[in-house]
Amino acid sequence: MTRPFFYHGQDTHWVTVSKHSLTLTLVSEADTLISTIFIRCEPDNEELLIDMEKGKAEGRLQYWHGQIPLNHDKALTHYCFKVMQNSRQWWLDSKGVSPRMPGRESHFKYNAQHQPPLWVKSQVFYQIFPDRFNNGDPSISVVDNEYCLKGDERPTIAKEWGAPVSGSHNSNGPNEFYGGDLKGIEDKIDYLEKLGVTALYLNPIFEAPSNHKYDTTDYTRIDPHLGNNTQFAAMVDNLHQRNMKIVLDAVYNHTSVNHPWFNRYQKQQEFVGAFGNPDSPFRNHYQFDGDSEHYIGWKGIDSLPKLNFSNPEVQNYIYAGDDAVIKQWLRPPYNIDGWRFDVIHMLGEGVGAANNAHYVKAFRNAAKSVNPDCYILGEHFFEATSWLEGDQEDGAMNYYGFAHPVRAFFANKDIAYHNCKIDAAEFAQWLEEVRGKVPWQNQLAQLNQLDSHDTMRFLTTLEGDQDTMKLALLMLFTYVGTPCIYYGTEVALEGGHDPDNRRCFPWERTETSNSTYDFISKLIGTRKAHLALQEGSLHWLHAEQQQLAYARTLGSETLLTLINNSNASKALTLPVWQLGIADSAVLTELITGDEWECKDGVLNITLAGKEGLLLTL
Amino acid sequence: MTRPFFYHGQDTHWVTVSKHSLTLTLVSEADTLISTIFIRCEPDNEELLIDMEKGKAEGRLQYWHGQIPLNHDKALTHYCFKVMQNSRQWWLDSKGVSPRMPGRESHFKYNAQHQPPLWVKSQVFYQIFPDRFNNGDPSISVVDNEYCLKGDERPTIAKEWGAPVSGSHNSNGPNEFYGGDLKGIEDKIDYLEKLGVTALYLNPIFEAPSNHKYDTTDYTRIDPHLGNNTQFAAMVDNLHQRNMKIVLDAVYNHTSVNHPWFNRYQKQQEFVGAFGNPDSPFRNHYQFDGDSEHYIGWKGIDSLPKLNFSNPEVQNYIYAGDDAVIKQWLRPPYNIDGWRFDVIHMLGEGVGAANNAHYVKAFRNAAKSVNPDCYILGEHFFEATSWLEGDQEDGAMNYYGFAHPVRAFFANKDIAYHNCKIDAAEFAQWLEEVRGKVPWQNQLAQLNQLDSHDTMRFLTTLEGDQDTMKLALLMLFTYVGTPCIYYGTEVALEGGHDPDNRRCFPWERTETSNSTYDFISKLIGTRKAHLALQEGSLHWLHAEQQQLAYARTLGSETLLTLINNSNASKALTLPVWQLGIADSAVLTELITGDEWECKDGVLNITLAGKEGLLLTL
Repeated sequence: MTRPFFYHGQDTHWVTVSKHSLTLTLVSEADTLISTIFIRCEPDNEELLIDMEKGKAEGRLQYWHGQIPLNHDKALTHYCFKVMQNSRQWWLDSKGVSPRMPGRESHFKYNAQHQPPLWVKSQVFYQIFPDRFNNGDPSISVVDNEYCLKGDERPTIAKEWGAPVSGSHNSNGPNEFYGGDLKGIEDKIDYLEKLGVTALYLNPIFEAPSNHKYDTTDYTRIDPHLGNNTQFAAMVDNLHQRNMKIVLDAVYNHTSVNHPWFNRYQKQQEFVGAFGNPDSPFRNHYQFDGDSEHYIGWKGIDSLPKLNFSNPEVQNYIYAGDDAVIKQWLRPPYNIDGWRFDVIHMLGEGVGAANNAHYVKAFRNAAKSVNPDCYILGEHFFEATSWLEGDQEDGAMNYYGFAHPVRAFFANKDIAYHNCKIDAAEFAQWLEEVRGKVPWQNQLAQLNQLDSHDTMRFLTTLEGDQDTMKLALLMLFTYVGTPCIYYGTEVALEGGHDPDNRRCFPWERTETSNSTYDFISKLIGTRKAHLALQEGSLHWLHAEQQQLAYARTLGSETLLTLINNSNASKALTLPVWQLGIADSAVLTELITGDEWECKDGVLNITLAGKEGLLLTL
Repeated sequence: MTRPFFYHGQDTHWVTVSKHSLTLTLVSEADTLISTIFIRCEPDNEELLIDMEKGKAEGRLQYWHGQIPLNHDKALTHYCFKVMQNSRQWWLDSKGVSPRMPGRESHFKYNAQHQPPLWVKSQVFYQIFPDRFNNGDPSISVVDNEYCLKGDERPTIAKEWGAPVSGSHNSNGPNEFYGGDLKGIEDKIDYLEKLGVTALYLNPIFEAPSNHKYDTTDYTRIDPHLGNNTQFAAMVDNLHQRNMKIVLDAVYNHTSVNHPWFNRYQKQQEFVGAFGNPDSPFRNHYQFDGDSEHYIGWKGIDSLPKLNFSNPEVQNYIYAGDDAVIKQWLRPPYNIDGWRFDVIHMLGEGVGAANNAHYVKAFRNAAKSVNPDCYILGEHFFEATSWLEGDQEDGAMNYYGFAHPVRAFFANKDIAYHNCKIDAAEFAQWLEEVRGKVPWQNQLAQLNQLDSHDTMRFLTTLEGDQDTMKLALLMLFTYVGTPCIYYGTEVALEGGHDPDNRRCFPWERTETSNSTYDFISKLIGTRKAHLALQEGSLHWLHAEQQQLAYARTLGSETLLTLINNSNASKALTLPVWQLGIADSAVLTELITGDEWECKDGVLNITLAGKEGLLLTL
């Protein structure tokens, strides 16, 4: 059953919003016989079908237009299209064309009340694990045996820059230090700016005993081995003067066992910590089993006791009070631009994450009350749909909607490093299925990454295969969502499982020319030069076997990504007429300058093995 | 890419529950090479993979078993399966086998806190539109010009039993009466019991001027033209003595304009109704635009003003107060067994349905507080997933998950009577997609219908094609969910669009033998005799072109439904080994007694054009 062509983008050329309505555009193929096209919406939870009007015909494309009411009773308006032919019907939703009404999860979505900050989608993010990026002030570096992480166990170890990191969490993963710090980051802002980076995401920098600092002991103080609050404020100021942004890591699900509220090992005498003291004023900050010393730790890990968000004191401290930490760092003199919330789906009350949505909304509202333009970014390793409808997060670390499928298609691994196999058709379906569950503006504000401090580096997952790495990077910078580079990717830094994925930045590699650096730098430049890559609609032209082709379009600006993930060359025939590309047109590769000619609305092109191209008109 | 065989049912042979865990069983094909099978669950919103243990091998089937924790933080526990082979992985969820992790909506679901009453799934429901079923007491029938529905418009018309109904809502649809009443229903209980019916669903019977009575004027009183409260209590008692159940229609989204609270036309002097009286004590029962006479009507219809559920007086009257109408009718002397809530997704506050979920949960809680075993049934013409997770409704009038796909496949029409075309593969996918979004217990409590008072009768949609009607009936009685027959279906009553679908019951047809009656009666008998049809898991064996085959299994009880929706005969090869059917076994057709032999775990069978079979071991 061949499905006819219908397409609806979600950028401002396809969707315009007024106070009470959305005006929508759809295209069909001009010679498809159509009796009526309806937009289907649900203004009161019940189906409403609204006729579209036939608009102009251009080349092989027929335009259709219609208007639907924005929902009054909820923030989200969702819609899809019903196309009537004489003897049958077709439906168009975010997953494409189907012969029957699609499930609500894949209807197109617009959130009229909650939208991510406009600045997010135009950024190029760079993630820094502070201890491993650059040592700018050796005088504050952790020294050997300075303190222990747990009682008298795990004494600190100071290691030489670039020395191999320890093998796993269970050895010296968290207690070895290389001395990276804020001064080190600030010293490299010129470097990052030259690469094209516009926004930083820093792993935690608040006081905490481990090198990763997901075990906070003071939410209000920059860790003294990284710098101090004044220095941080100055660094943000420096970034802002360059029109750069910064997002910090918010670790509110749990604290360190050494947080004075808990006070298990490094006891601070002035605090009567919760551990061992059923009468402690902080006992209810955590979740103890009665008077016993059993408490809920994150994922059962007893060094990371979970905060109890049903306690109003915790609420006030974290988000609700005037001086709540979420608000504090968004205000002068710090003025950070957003928060990345660690394991945000897991926090709440009791075992599990009871009332999680309530707290995530409260975090958002607290943050936006101080800076309505701040970025609320959630960490989710798996499906984040329910947090991304608009009223909770602006975007997520997009493991589920980008890193997982990319890893499966290019590296044949899933996020647990188990083998998997998908072809390009399954890859495209997966990407579309996940993307379509989320409003378009949130799709653009997703933080797309190939890897992070929590995954094997992607180049290493690929066993060092630079050709495939370049295909994945091409996707990172041309797919829907905001790209984020994990530090060192631009100099082809490798690294296995955590903590090997947190190696020291090899600065010596920046002293000679480097093809990965050049490639990423060109991709960044291209993304910045073309608004279509930042906020244009996505249009699949091909996804079969190991080849794929998709366009990003924004009005007349069209960029076409072609990827051959096979080692063998492959000839493709692409229906570029669907993009409104004239019968004969010339497409230019943006990195090499090579040219191709379209004929009769079709681009015939042969991709070499592992070739990726980025074409424009 | 051939997908290997994996299957997981959801009845008690596959899922057993204890206080804190679910024990799950899965089968694979014995010769499929598998390294590990994980159950994937999310006890704290984060993935947890749990190894399954290899159990017995039986024939070509290999059993696997594993246990997962029930979620603590939410009522719903969802899970799917991840199967590891050497170089790849497969996932099994409610939609079947796929090469990558499926979206959360299709994971299997178990609700540990909220489940439908156990009695529902074993019922055979019969829906009665009271004015058209049987006139048992002519002395209370509406007479010509007895009253007007609207001011001095639409005077009542008394029509002779069986005379054609008027053509549409806009003519005399709602104001013509045939005299059906409660006495008429009670007189036919023997008839219904003999047919095999075990539960009645009555369209509204409370005081209301129209024949359909969706325009209530008194929620506490049986309409005097149908009978009285005492008589109703006696009828329920009669039903209960026969172990039959009764569900009434709850119309709480809106009232009649003649409800004394509104008092627009037939003014009751003792009430200062809301219409025309901004100072009326009932003004806030509805949703007026300030002091004007503009108010919100259901779907904009001004004769059906929407109730304002943000008003505590409305809340108390409908569900919250001790004597709330939802509670009243569930208590002695009435003791009804459940409510069917009219357009339940549309009610709430203001335009649209703001806070709808809150009120639906409150309705449920109010009803269950009086009778924990009552059936909460919602009316939804479209997707009802979000109302069916357990904590709102027990089941829905299953238009979306049964009537729509059945109509599309057998009648090539959608619910708006637009033409559509789907093949058996799309049909099965559609059914599975919708079903899998809902916990298994709620799937069983869905009220499946081919038609109702709101749709063209299915036989008429089929243009009188009795052969295809029988295929659809075969599905109705063998698919997952509780079957409901719209009155008269058993005597092949036809009827076009509303109100023609509400013709008088042609009692003369029950005096001679009738093949539809016999067929339905046998199907009912078979369903009652086989628990597998009431609560067994569903297992698809074939769905291609116009043919389908599925089994319902409950332990060793296996019933196999085969349907050929084409006019041409068709040979099928069915892998019955997947059901654990021995290499050679004999299958018997339950209605005709014909026999077929399986060989090597396969059933080769040729279906005649439009043939349907129901086989068992």
